[in-house]
Amino acid sequence: MKRTLGTCYYPEHWPEAQWPEDARRMADLGLTWVRIGEFAWSLLEPAPGRYDWDWLDRAIDVLTGAGLSVVLGTPSATPPRWILDRFPDMLAHDAEGRPRKFGSRRHYDFAHAGYRDAAARMAGLMAERYGDRIAAWQTDNEYGCHDTTVSWSPVAQDAFRIWLKDKYGTITNLNDAWGNIFWSMTYDDFGQIGLPNLTVTEPNPSHALAFRRFASDMVVDWNAAQVAAIRAHSDAPISHNYMGRVTDFDHYAVARQMEIATWDSYPMGFLLDRVPGGDKAAYLRQGDPDFQAFHHDLYRACGAGRWWVMEQQPGPVNWAPWNPAPLPGMVRLWSWEAFAHGAEAVCWFRWRQFPQAQEQQHAGLLRPDSSEAAGFAEAAQVAAELRDAPDVAAVQAPVALIFDYASQWAWEVQPQGVGFDHFALCFDLYRALRSLGLSVDILPPDTASLGGYAFTLVPGLLSLTDPLRAAIEAADGLVLTGPRTDLKTSELSIPTPMGPNLPGLAATSVMEETFPPEAPRGLPAGGGIDLWLEHIETTAEVVERTTDGAPVLLRHGKRAHLAGWPDKMAARRIIGALARDAGLTTVDLPEGLRIRDTGTERFVFNYASHPLDYDGKTLDPAGILRLSLPS
Amino acid sequence: MKRTLGTCYYPEHWPEAQWPEDARRMADLGLTWVRIGEFAWSLLEPAPGRYDWDWLDRAIDVLTGAGLSVVLGTPSATPPRWILDRFPDMLAHDAEGRPRKFGSRRHYDFAHAGYRDAAARMAGLMAERYGDRIAAWQTDNEYGCHDTTVSWSPVAQDAFRIWLKDKYGTITNLNDAWGNIFWSMTYDDFGQIGLPNLTVTEPNPSHALAFRRFASDMVVDWNAAQVAAIRAHSDAPISHNYMGRVTDFDHYAVARQMEIATWDSYPMGFLLDRVPGGDKAAYLRQGDPDFQAFHHDLYRACGAGRWWVMEQQPGPVNWAPWNPAPLPGMVRLWSWEAFAHGAEAVCWFRWRQFPQAQEQQHAGLLRPDSSEAAGFAEAAQVAAELRDAPDVAAVQAPVALIFDYASQWAWEVQPQGVGFDHFALCFDLYRALRSLGLSVDILPPDTASLGGYAFTLVPGLLSLTDPLRAAIEAADGLVLTGPRTDLKTSELSIPTPMGPNLPGLAATSVMEETFPPEAPRGLPAGGGIDLWLEHIETTAEVVERTTDGAPVLLRHGKRAHLAGWPDKMAARRIIGALARDAGLTTVDLPEGLRIRDTGTERFVFNYASHPLDYDGKTLDPAGILRLSLPS
Amino acid sequence: MKRTLGTCYYPEHWPEAQWPEDARRMADLGLTWVRIGEFAWSLLEPAPGRYDWDWLDRAIDVLTGAGLSVVLGTPSATPPRWILDRFPDMLAHDAEGRPRKFGSRRHYDFAHAGYRDAAARMAGLMAERYGDRIAAWQTDNEYGCHDTTVSWSPVAQDAFRIWLKDKYGTITNLNDAWGNIFWSMTYDDFGQIGLPNLTVTEPNPSHALAFRRFASDMVVDWNAAQVAAIRAHSDAPISHNYMGRVTDFDHYAVARQMEIATWDSYPMGFLLDRVPGGDKAAYLRQGDPDFQAFHHDLYRACGAGRWWVMEQQPGPVNWAPWNPAPLPGMVRLWSWEAFAHGAEAVCWFRWRQFPQAQEQQHAGLLRPDSSEAAGFAEAAQVAAELRDAPDVAAVQAPVALIFDYASQWAWEVQPQGVGFDHFALCFDLYRALRSLGLSVDILPPDTASLGGYAFTLVPGLLSLTDPLRAAIEAADGLVLTGPRTDLKTSELSIPTPMGPNLPGLAATSVMEETFPPEAPRGLPAGGGIDLWLEHIETTAEVVERTTDGAPVLLRHGKRAHLAGWPDKMAARRIIGALARDAGLTTVDLPEGLRIRDTGTERFVFNYASHPLDYDGKTLDPAGILRLSLPS
Repeated sequence: MKRTLGTCYYPEHWPEAQWPEDARRMADLGLTWVRIGEFAWSLLEPAPGRYDWDWLDRAIDVLTGAGLSVVLGTPSATPPRWILDRFPDMLAHDAEGRPRKFGSRRHYDFAHAGYRDAAARMAGLMAERYGDRIAAWQTDNEYGCHDTTVSWSPVAQDAFRIWLKDKYGTITNLNDAWGNIFWSMTYDDFGQIGLPNLTVTEPNPSHALAFRRFASDMVVDWNAAQVAAIRAHSDAPISHNYMGRVTDFDHYAVARQMEIATWDSYPMGFLLDRVPGGDKAAYLRQGDPDFQAFHHDLYRACGAGRWWVMEQQPGPVNWAPWNPAPLPGMVRLWSWEAFAHGAEAVCWFRWRQFPQAQEQQHAGLLRPDSSEAAGFAEAAQVAAELRDAPDVAAVQAPVALIFDYASQWAWEVQPQGVGFDHFALCFDLYRALRSLGLSVDILPPDTASLGGYAFTLVPGLLSLTDPLRAAIEAADGLVLTGPRTDLKTSELSIPTPMGPNLPGLAATSVMEETFPPEAPRGLPAGGGIDLWLEHIETTAEVVERTTDGAPVLLRHGKRAHLAGWPDKMAARRIIGALARDAGLTTVDLPEGLRIRDTGTERFVFNYASHPLDYDGKTLDPAGILRLSLPS
Repeated sequence: MKRTLGTCYYPEHWPEAQWPEDARRMADLGLTWVRIGEFAWSLLEPAPGRYDWDWLDRAIDVLTGAGLSVVLGTPSATPPRWILDRFPDMLAHDAEGRPRKFGSRRHYDFAHAGYRDAAARMAGLMAERYGDRIAAWQTDNEYGCHDTTVSWSPVAQDAFRIWLKDKYGTITNLNDAWGNIFWSMTYDDFGQIGLPNLTVTEPNPSHALAFRRFASDMVVDWNAAQVAAIRAHSDAPISHNYMGRVTDFDHYAVARQMEIATWDSYPMGFLLDRVPGGDKAAYLRQGDPDFQAFHHDLYRACGAGRWWVMEQQPGPVNWAPWNPAPLPGMVRLWSWEAFAHGAEAVCWFRWRQFPQAQEQQHAGLLRPDSSEAAGFAEAAQVAAELRDAPDVAAVQAPVALIFDYASQWAWEVQPQGVGFDHFALCFDLYRALRSLGLSVDILPPDTASLGGYAFTLVPGLLSLTDPLRAAIEAADGLVLTGPRTDLKTSELSIPTPMGPNLPGLAATSVMEETFPPEAPRGLPAGGGIDLWLEHIETTAEVVERTTDGAPVLLRHGKRAHLAGWPDKMAARRIIGALARDAGLTTVDLPEGLRIRDTGTERFVFNYASHPLDYDGKTLDPAGILRLSLPS
Repeated sequence: MKRTLGTCYYPEHWPEAQWPEDARRMADLGLTWVRIGEFAWSLLEPAPGRYDWDWLDRAIDVLTGAGLSVVLGTPSATPPRWILDRFPDMLAHDAEGRPRKFGSRRHYDFAHAGYRDAAARMAGLMAERYGDRIAAWQTDNEYGCHDTTVSWSPVAQDAFRIWLKDKYGTITNLNDAWGNIFWSMTYDDFGQIGLPNLTVTEPNPSHALAFRRFASDMVVDWNAAQVAAIRAHSDAPISHNYMGRVTDFDHYAVARQMEIATWDSYPMGFLLDRVPGGDKAAYLRQGDPDFQAFHHDLYRACGAGRWWVMEQQPGPVNWAPWNPAPLPGMVRLWSWEAFAHGAEAVCWFRWRQFPQAQEQQHAGLLRPDSSEAAGFAEAAQVAAELRDAPDVAAVQAPVALIFDYASQWAWEVQPQGVGFDHFALCFDLYRALRSLGLSVDILPPDTASLGGYAFTLVPGLLSLTDPLRAAIEAADGLVLTGPRTDLKTSELSIPTPMGPNLPGLAATSVMEETFPPEAPRGLPAGGGIDLWLEHIETTAEVVERTTDGAPVLLRHGKRAHLAGWPDKMAARRIIGALARDAGLTTVDLPEGLRIRDTGTERFVFNYASHPLDYDGKTLDPAGILRLSLPS
């Protein structure tokens, strides 16, 4: 695999006369890819049924003529204003029940079949015209961004009722599955079921979780419609650019339809409003040291190995609470962190800063006046570093971590304690693994084999799927479950017999408790348990207990279970000991220093704003060290 | 009076085959009472007019057959889904004007006459069928819980207009009473009057208070309809289970219709979101040491001596921000605190944890798999301790505290400073009394005699009622009024002459000021004044002044007045000195230790998580000491 | 010019028999002015077309008979209830799209032509009847108070579309001006354009800013209608009483229509919810030392020299989060601070505290029972001090500060970092000037000459207007621009060439960054840069840089530019050095001490709660020192 670079470009923003110069400069910079088109519907179809492809024909001519490969986006994230006249009920509704108005983007309801089909038809038209002229496709843009997966509209309610009928068959099945006998919530027919918002107190959690599953399925169906329309005319690989920490739909399921997974990486935008925990003050101009890495590993799983960064931050953005400038060197570091995790391509968003509208304060590689912006030189440096690089091959990591979208929804529906969040729990353990120098593969919840993994973590999983249960049973490596794993059925009820029902480790949680941040439970060996503790009855060995005697870490052979949410110190201590016990070598990394191993190289990254040493070498802030690994 | 135990049970949640075993275990545990039925409407009347009483007949057979006494709840808190088709406008509306949807419970508007009558009819049908087979009734469930007293619906608006017409007679009377000449708010007829929400700036406080009185009256009328329907067929005593710190309706007025007042006591659920002030970190697993006691005393007043705890927490709940497990011993301690305050019965919620729906994480005495949960053994211990206990008799406390619902609404409407809350003020003074070892009776605002009370406190009362004014005039004991007592008319205006107009103590508040928590006014003798200070002109003795000279404590013979809100230290100092002056003996209790005297015994409770000494004896955490009192 | 006093009076609140005594006491107190009528519509026109002028005739007779001059308010801020029946769509809508209901005041939409004309007609009727009997007019009351400038109603949407058509002519012009090509936001006709609320993510900032300009224009038009109606019948000067820190409409534009600008000064009400920054705990009973001064200077600009305080706080108010009593002496001090800034009149709100309705806890000069309230004696003292005072003349200050309403809206639309606020930035620099003993003139953004100003500050200006650009070019004095000045077009886009485009100082901001409060950028010379830093390329001298080398202060001859938001220490240091360089004498004032120079006198005010020295003299808390200035 070659490592390649690219950028996002909006020919429609600029005079046509400027295109050739832009294309030449992109090529000179060493870019391979240019992504275009994904917000241009109003120009491609200025009025219903009146198409104007000419400008896009010419733009593609200019770009490919300069040697660039085009990624073409379908424009469904920004339906033109006139489509609203055709589908007045296509707007998504917020949780307060209000339509979300035209005037920005993503103002459509995934459950609206009319708009879904119109969007797929447009994708088909583009595929028909450009299918053999472009190198890759992108469907839509950042599904779910701006909280757009879940819509509380009448259209969604109608579709939800159909979805429920499909799933449960009879209303009695649904009433039984949800336990509607509680509080006389029994329904007589599917047409009585509302959306689970604006209820007097919390709705039935099974109702709420079903609605979240439905909402995710609507995204899956939506994307499938475009993929089918494109496939009919084009063999180019298809991708979607996922947004960081958007967890409202099942990315694995959407990604399964396409060849490549890509994601949009804004380290500094994420830091201040999406990263759980961590020392934000220390990384204001660098972004969190683990957050991008987590997503790189997640989308490598989504793409089954084929993944890109489709949008990479090259300077300040406009959408975080505060928007500092990256520390010099970070634009380069972020790119190499992606490549170290196996990215095929890193594309900067965007070529040139557009001086108008919502993102006018969002940097590009070029300033609005076409001068080089601060990130340009770092992009050039990465390009130079890539120029003579050999091909690289994918390699399996020694550690696996299961991440599951449905568990994310389940604990949002039923946190039981403020702050219980599947992503945050997985990310805390991921941080611990990274702080120990370990490279990680993230895997989906229906993973059927853990072959080759010395150590697998299964934290906060709603319920063990059958394939995963079998995989754990068959695993040679160490498997750590919990906390809050397999305590529920897939309907978000308490199972019989009570959970967790773990392969190879007998344990029952007889009571779960949560507690506020200021009241952790101490651990005699150091650190403590935050937020969550399940009280376990077990015949397994209790390796570690809280200071008041509650079992926290259980062990039986190669199976271990964690009964509480470890704080940073405890996570690092416990995970480290288990990893070493599993035969892995851990490294005690200082704050800010991070490692990622490819098959042949070890990359060391300094995210700190001060120099740090690794193995006798000093890394400046934003510094990168590349070491050969013994093959 | 016998002290008895019970539990809440939902036969409809479990296979009928399990009922006999459940009933036997309840009886074996020593329970007297089993409350059933209050959420079962959809099973009792699965379709309009189609009744299914058989299962309930059999459940009652089984339970009474095991020697248990049944408390039967009317099921109006959970109207079945089909009733919505009959009364589409029965849903309460939130303050934003949105209907509060079906899908949880309490989704009805107290002002909806159609549903009120349908619910009363159902209660009547149950009374007709079960009136002589059961031991007691409960109407509905937790009126006002989930903020359901006040509804901002068109139905409520219509009813409010009628209520206003009844109260004021003519629109001119209303305009005059409210001072509508201010800001040209004058109405021409009752049909023009809206609900006082969503106004541009605050509505007229008289308007807002009238609406709160109306909302309370709707609850009073609602309950009266069910009581009348039951009375027509049954002589069994009737009760309602009030919820802790629900103050949106007048509990005294509702309780006056029935024989027994009960309340639902969730010490740990309350701690984190309902208890004003206090050291939450110290009592995370015990609950606040005074909060339940306050309610015990309040509902003893409501029930005119006859009161129960209808729902007692036996383990973690699911609805607080965080839900820890009780400290071992607390399930027992909470029960004995209730008995020490005169409870006739303590019933645990609930027999067995239901593994589905909203409260699946809410503990019972049994786990979902029917094993004994952590609280079971403590329940058994209480039962054993009660087995040979003699009958007890009610006794009047030496101290009285007036608590008034209308004052709660008044200061919510017009706090004048963030945090001014009638409950919080009364509770602060109650805490001070408890910390001094004093037992307290809570009394309603229309109390007509203070006979037998050495010391009476009247804090934050909107206005002195005529009976209370007469009672104060006639009182032999010490009476402390204020702060913010009798500064307003019942319409929430400033009276002429200006208040307070106190019997036996000449004082006028010429200006009131409020100040933020970080700026208390100091008191030379220790502690300070928080939030509220009325500037008093008086001919009475000024016992204490702020450091800048404002009178804080006035005294004339047996009458005293407090002009500001004392902080914890000042409250304890001032209340202690007055109590001793009134001839009472105070005890300087350490944090966490609490006393309650019955007629014959002194109970000492340790709420701290460490051992504490009392009178030479050491109490473990959750420990109880019982001392005989000289008779 | 004479310095005069007055009060606000509501004869309709009191029995007619009390009027003569009230009038006599006002005159005895030394008051010149009495403002009446502004909330009395429901009494003046109790039913549509049925007028009752008699009571107002008699009230004016009584007041003028006592020697008082009447300011008559038009009553449009409190339309009577019956007008709603005539114009059911006249209610403003909040940003959630809900009508803002009747029941308080200001419940009208400025864009509603029907109510605007009805209100103007009422003003005309009053002018016809009283035009030659009264001394001055006030239109409406506190435009924009309670967030009432911007309405999100259908009526506003219709008017906005017309306004846009007038401004842009063609939809293509609008699309181009807003950059609607971005995200396919292109409109086909003006009828498609909605209000910029409830969009999925932020709306186009140009769209949002246009809507804010429109909303301001609606206020301008509204006031113009009343002014025209009054002018037709009366030659008395017209004023409006603006409210402190209401910045949602262009006060300069409204004020230009009238002879006098007045404002309502509530120092303690403002402190806790409107004053940006400052030490609130130190000034709880005094109000912020600079906030009123800023407004005095602002309204002097609005009134082109003629301005009053129409409502002055005489005691506690009711509307702040907490409402303390003023420190003794502050009622006097606030009055003299106003006079020192050139006020023609100071009027207290209000004569007597009305014991009912919304403001019953708002003090007056008299208590509800007609006794003198705490502020009365201080008012009398000011009256005595004024009695023999000579006439005073206006004088230009040595320092000018540009304040611009459109810039306020622009940065609200596009803060780029939480907390970026034009008012707060201007006020921070104003504070620095005040702390250095400098007197300031505030000037509008279209100021055409800076003649006579030694030092002019132009902070945070959206874009330099043509007149101001010319004025800066021609200025003899020192001119300091920035931060964030002239970085945008008036449409809120990035200009070509990129800004700032400053007369006489070559500088380009190539990137702007924002950062949170906990991460300021240090300055080697002391203090730091908060929140905002523009990265400047310049050929000018860089006087000061951040510790990491970014230019912060540029200088070229008499032109300087500040690239970041200085913290308190840096602002005082930098502004002080520049002021001295401009030939001004600065005074290093301690916290709490403030100076204002008139043409002939220096006033020194002690806002601290402890004594402070100035030039060898000790000022008690609330103390005032008057020193003659050399002429």
